[in-house]
Amino acid sequence: MSKVNIGPNVSIYPMPVTLVGAKVEGRANFLAVGWITRVNMKPPLLAVGLNKSHFTPRGIREHGTFSVNFPGANLMEKADYCGLVSGRRVDKSGLFRVFYGELETAPLIEECPLGLECRLYQVVELPSHDLFIGEIVTAHADEDCLTDGHPDILKINPMVLTMPDNNYWTVSERAGQAWHAGKKLKQDADLKKT
Amino acid sequence: MSKVNIGPNVSIYPMPVTLVGAKVEGRANFLAVGWITRVNMKPPLLAVGLNKSHFTPRGIREHGTFSVNFPGANLMEKADYCGLVSGRRVDKSGLFRVFYGELETAPLIEECPLGLECRLYQVVELPSHDLFIGEIVTAHADEDCLTDGHPDILKINPMVLTMPDNNYWTVSERAGQAWHAGKKLKQDADLKKT
Repeated sequence: MSKVNIGPNVSIYPMPVTLVGAKVEGRANFLAVGWITRVNMKPPLLAVGLNKSHFTPRGIREHGTFSVNFPGANLMEKADYCGLVSGRRVDKSGLFRVFYGELETAPLIEECPLGLECRLYQVVELPSHDLFIGEIVTAHADEDCLTDGHPDILKINPMVLTMPDNNYWTVSERAGQAWHAGKKLKQDADLKKT
Repeated sequence: MSKVNIGPNVSIYPMPVTLVGAKVEGRANFLAVGWITRVNMKPPLLAVGLNKSHFTPRGIREHGTFSVNFPGANLMEKADYCGLVSGRRVDKSGLFRVFYGELETAPLIEECPLGLECRLYQVVELPSHDLFIGEIVTAHADEDCLTDGHPDILKINPMVLTMPDNNYWTVSERAGQAWHAGKKLKQDADLKKT
């Protein structure tokens, strides 16, 4: 296989597509975010990397709360719009049906099949972005998007993003079972040891 | 739509599947990792959330380097195996053809179509996990997995993971164009303003 050096500015393949919500200047605002991951098990923490120039971080810092909403592919246009325009310039509060859960300043999107309420836990300041670590307080899911009480990716139909080609994709093909597909190799290794 | 409160221990849908490499006790070790995201643009930083009990963090801390490798779905069994067994117990250095790039202690996987070399930038200590923030020094890609010089998700064929159902998925269906699909809504909003 011929390897090519493609430099350091490389993306993660693929990124989840989320809408991060915050209350800014008294109104709900939503930002399209692909830089997000869980970072701690107990308590359940996640981290969101946001450019310092964005409008949303102001609300997160002011109220110490934010939401993470997972739009289905049917919301692609509105989700993309949230990444095209800044809340500084446009009022995005009427774009979705907004509701609030336990936290009064973490706006959730009714149309999104899954939404997490987060309380700000820590901010890690980085050169161009800040990393907002939030504790998941609770999550709200559409009842018909659950299987055995847990979110079902085929029912949620979330999008993933690739850059710099800037494409949205959906996930539909199951490849195998995690913490299981490698068991044969584990057995072989165990046999070699005995 | 009927919303159900499903508690705080909720995953990101979906997570990328990566193999994080480090040199530990003199040998290459690889850990399956889904908690990863880019976190800064300039310099290009990414963050990886690793349980404190893992073997790999020792090597990252010792050498200040690590790698992030993206296995194609054809490597599912080996990638899953890397999440099933600890390097403390099993020598995983012979599982793949390992090579090194600029950094001498960030083992890369020849069989993975994309691999990033990272220099440790900062460690954020959290209760059960530590967040390793790394600066991407450079990336190595299989020449036949590039389109216009950039990684092509259809050629890489990476896996994504969902929990707690523990399934691997692949991405094949394009849903639309990012920073474009919402342009009609933006035009409508601009018209309303004028």
